[in-house]
Amino acid sequence: MPGNTFGHTFRITTWGESHGKALGVVIDGCPSKIKLSESDIQKEVNKRKSKSAKVSTPRKETDKVVILSGVFEGKTTGTPISILIENKDARSKDYTHLKNAFREGHADKTYQLKYGIRDYRGGGRASGRETVSRVIAGAIAKKILPKNVKITGEITQVGKLRKSNITIKDIGKYIEEEKLSKNSCGGVVEITVKNPPAGLGEPVFDKLDAELAKALMSIGAVKGVEIGAGFRAAEMKGSENVKVGENHAGGILGGISDGNDIKIRIAVKPTPSIGGKGRHDKCIVPRIVIVAEAMTAIVLADHLLRNQTY
Amino acid sequence: MPGNTFGHTFRITTWGESHGKALGVVIDGCPSKIKLSESDIQKEVNKRKSKSAKVSTPRKETDKVVILSGVFEGKTTGTPISILIENKDARSKDYTHLKNAFREGHADKTYQLKYGIRDYRGGGRASGRETVSRVIAGAIAKKILPKNVKITGEITQVGKLRKSNITIKDIGKYIEEEKLSKNSCGGVVEITVKNPPAGLGEPVFDKLDAELAKALMSIGAVKGVEIGAGFRAAEMKGSENVKVGENHAGGILGGISDGNDIKIRIAVKPTPSIGGKGRHDKCIVPRIVIVAEAMTAIVLADHLLRNQTY
Amino acid sequence: MPGNTFGHTFRITTWGESHGKALGVVIDGCPSKIKLSESDIQKEVNKRKSKSAKVSTPRKETDKVVILSGVFEGKTTGTPISILIENKDARSKDYTHLKNAFREGHADKTYQLKYGIRDYRGGGRASGRETVSRVIAGAIAKKILPKNVKITGEITQVGKLRKSNITIKDIGKYIEEEKLSKNSCGGVVEITVKNPPAGLGEPVFDKLDAELAKALMSIGAVKGVEIGAGFRAAEMKGSENVKVGENHAGGILGGISDGNDIKIRIAVKPTPSIGGKGRHDKCIVPRIVIVAEAMTAIVLADHLLRNQTY
Amino acid sequence: MPGNTFGHTFRITTWGESHGKALGVVIDGCPSKIKLSESDIQKEVNKRKSKSAKVSTPRKETDKVVILSGVFEGKTTGTPISILIENKDARSKDYTHLKNAFREGHADKTYQLKYGIRDYRGGGRASGRETVSRVIAGAIAKKILPKNVKITGEITQVGKLRKSNITIKDIGKYIEEEKLSKNSCGGVVEITVKNPPAGLGEPVFDKLDAELAKALMSIGAVKGVEIGAGFRAAEMKGSENVKVGENHAGGILGGISDGNDIKIRIAVKPTPSIGGKGRHDKCIVPRIVIVAEAMTAIVLADHLLRNQTY
Repeated sequence: MPGNTFGHTFRITTWGESHGKALGVVIDGCPSKIKLSESDIQKEVNKRKSKSAKVSTPRKETDKVVILSGVFEGKTTGTPISILIENKDARSKDYTHLKNAFREGHADKTYQLKYGIRDYRGGGRASGRETVSRVIAGAIAKKILPKNVKITGEITQVGKLRKSNITIKDIGKYIEEEKLSKNSCGGVVEITVKNPPAGLGEPVFDKLDAELAKALMSIGAVKGVEIGAGFRAAEMKGSENVKVGENHAGGILGGISDGNDIKIRIAVKPTPSIGGKGRHDKCIVPRIVIVAEAMTAIVLADHLLRNQTY
Repeated sequence: MPGNTFGHTFRITTWGESHGKALGVVIDGCPSKIKLSESDIQKEVNKRKSKSAKVSTPRKETDKVVILSGVFEGKTTGTPISILIENKDARSKDYTHLKNAFREGHADKTYQLKYGIRDYRGGGRASGRETVSRVIAGAIAKKILPKNVKITGEITQVGKLRKSNITIKDIGKYIEEEKLSKNSCGGVVEITVKNPPAGLGEPVFDKLDAELAKALMSIGAVKGVEIGAGFRAAEMKGSENVKVGENHAGGILGGISDGNDIKIRIAVKPTPSIGGKGRHDKCIVPRIVIVAEAMTAIVLADHLLRNQTY
Repeated sequence: MPGNTFGHTFRITTWGESHGKALGVVIDGCPSKIKLSESDIQKEVNKRKSKSAKVSTPRKETDKVVILSGVFEGKTTGTPISILIENKDARSKDYTHLKNAFREGHADKTYQLKYGIRDYRGGGRASGRETVSRVIAGAIAKKILPKNVKITGEITQVGKLRKSNITIKDIGKYIEEEKLSKNSCGGVVEITVKNPPAGLGEPVFDKLDAELAKALMSIGAVKGVEIGAGFRAAEMKGSENVKVGENHAGGILGGISDGNDIKIRIAVKPTPSIGGKGRHDKCIVPRIVIVAEAMTAIVLADHLLRNQTY
Repeated sequence: MPGNTFGHTFRITTWGESHGKALGVVIDGCPSKIKLSESDIQKEVNKRKSKSAKVSTPRKETDKVVILSGVFEGKTTGTPISILIENKDARSKDYTHLKNAFREGHADKTYQLKYGIRDYRGGGRASGRETVSRVIAGAIAKKILPKNVKITGEITQVGKLRKSNITIKDIGKYIEEEKLSKNSCGGVVEITVKNPPAGLGEPVFDKLDAELAKALMSIGAVKGVEIGAGFRAAEMKGSENVKVGENHAGGILGGISDGNDIKIRIAVKPTPSIGGKGRHDKCIVPRIVIVAEAMTAIVLADHLLRNQTY
């Protein structure tokens, strides 16, 4: 059974390679009568691009969102919403040097191993470019959530730099100081969901924290996920951990949201594409922020709908 | 859509409350002609019990495994395997004092909130006792994996104590030193898979690491999951992270196993049941080891079968 | 991917062989706070047995329903409901003569072919006895449907006898007249759903008629399914078929229920177990009525819950 | 849970409305290294169009197949295959007269009822045009099946005309004789699978016949499905039905293919769009042949892959 579909009741199927004709997503299960326009989604997609503009070197893509189905006269109809983005900058490159090369730390080797064939141009399906489909689906998921739900990602670590609210400017400075212009750095992103609906999550396997862990760990560079106190909980005493007002549980108890803020932390590894010729990302953490927010929204929307059957 | 089924091709459905008549699991998709006896499974179930005997106060359950279907003349037949364990020690207790009490840090409140009703006896469905079903399924999953695959969990942290291979004795000593007899402590478990088959994992959402994260985060007390270098990767430079021979990726690249050892770390919070009258667990980490090994085996077995279609 | 689970939001997983220790079903996704007792279910199970008593020779089973989980103080809790029935009459038989025999028209051969092994005692998993699990799940499904929904099956054909409301007595007489005591006969069952909720069904693949067709065709002896006018529609003109007040569509348009009565017909083949020594069923049609009603209820309950997300 | 995905291991998700920008399908789970070109698929799509040219009045669509992902250098890569067809003829029409009109026998009413909104242009998602996505997916499914598997549909009834191998010419003549130029007629299609692999089908719910029934009943105008002897089996004696060499079971026993030809019959109702101004189909049966063949191929491909895990 293949793995390009996520969610059950709000269900997304993504497709597309880094250097194919286009990338896209089909969203099935979006409730009807929700206002939706291309520009709503374009805004989120642009955020993904601009956020990373200075510390990564993305190709020059217009990333123009086109809605092909499921929306009529500005509203969703309950039928599948198909959205695509054409690849333009990708066309004419010569990638034959990658045909037999397995770049260290990349998925080149494992894709070849699994499928016996791969689209080696720019990472193919394993490229970070795939995440644009997630951002599109996330933009729609957000529209399903109650208006007061706020999902925000904040960078709290880049390489060895730890502080709250790390900005692109901070990262630029860090890259300069650490002489990372031909290297790369990772970081930590904290995601907070304010005013989450209570009662979301389906024990015992589709617990809300379990589903968030999967959603976030499925983002290319993510290597760790914590809910609430996370690894810090391992060193607490029981009496400390349950202290009222501390929300060490991160808003989820027994796999079900309790109405407190949901707190998640994810670890982002540095990109393996470093040095050499050709453009590369020095720090993809800012871009991951947007993708992580999107995946969080998708999980919440799916569970909001799933919860309507009790 | 409910959440008591895990896996797709090797698919388990668990059921049962802490103080109901029985607990069990139905395993669908187990290949046929695999030797399987009750005693094979009993061994794993006993491990779960004995491992924790000294630092937790489990009720006196025989936990006798009964296979009800799917096995004929000592071999699996390809039909669903139904297995149950009767609850015996649970019968006569009086739990009415919990009827309207929401214990801090427990799932009492969220279950009530979600379902508007709950079996309040001993945690009901949210009880750690539910994990016995996972251990049963894990015992069968292990039989599907190639013989040379070895899944082992090791405790590397208990409360503030950090060292390799922490034993029950070490934990007992720690509890004494820290005066935790009326409190509880958490810890960290490292799971290693030796000789994993390469090529497992289904990009882009059902990546092997994403599925492992979900499987492990779905265990009651687990609050964090790391693959390979995990959160340490966040502070590495790209050049460090991809260093050959270091396996910072933890055996998984692009969501697909590469044949290197799979390395996972999970954070276990201290149980919220502390002090007061009545028995409680001082440290559930040893028991989690067995459950985490089981969930890892289940994910691998499912993906081994899923991978047979390419 | 295995096939012993049916439904998505109201999801049932059945298990058990004809001559194993027990048979049963796990129901996941049943809403909470629904009154449910063993006797509610027992009533339906008894109907299945008694309905067929005179024209089939069922073994002497008490078929005692035991609820093992998911119900607390007489109400469903939203957790999985596990129910089993022990096999008693089955124990001591000698079935070794079937070990290498593939009975004509039976699943013996195909199970052996697919799985390379089979529980040959009394049909194993392929036995009609499996349907008891469906009747159990159907009894619960009916409790989810609005009270005014009435699902009734009526036998309209047995062998060559065609008339409305064929009774067990009619069948007994037919068997006598046609000298079928060492043979068997099939028939046709019409299922009518009165007052079905409108809006059920999920285009374009999980249309209500498509799901009903699957549900009913998955019953052992069923070889044909018609919705509304069925095969008669093939010979109508368009102008006849859409005639107002005729309900040729059988209450389903575009795969969605329109509020009119749902009309289904199924063809039941005669059992292949005939003549020879040993007990056999002369006519299983009356028993199929109960199973078909159950499967219809399961599909409707599942879609009622699925429809709550729009 | 929505319903626009079909299949499990070979999994298709279709999208698109009759008069939207485009229609398409994402195929996930297609094995890698299969030769695939746009022209392979175009051939099947053209068949759907030309087959019906004389007895229906399809709009003038080029129906040009575009592969957007999942194929690299002429071969599938194991990643999702996204294919679309642009709608061209559809653009400028005025359909506002349908906005509040519920055409008799159409899905207009039920879509409105379920979703509270609908794309009323030319049937929207409920249009027969949706089936082009199925034909595309079927073209790929056929490539997965062993070469000697032959799936063929034959028209054996049109209105009251019954004979083997009914041609477009026969239908044209029938329409003339019966004066159906402002009316429409349905019919019966027989699908035969020659040399099907044995062992396909997943008891007890995902039996091969059950899945075929669902797949075929999910095609818009289909109102009945028979496997093997179908409704004729209802009047046979057991001794007749199991007669060796007769294949009354239609190649499927206990829900598993036995290697004999698979025989299916489906009833197609006449289209409800009749008379009045505007183009309409007089007989969609020829077009259904192609769609039914495609759905059969999809079910077989899915089960061929599912069967690889035993």
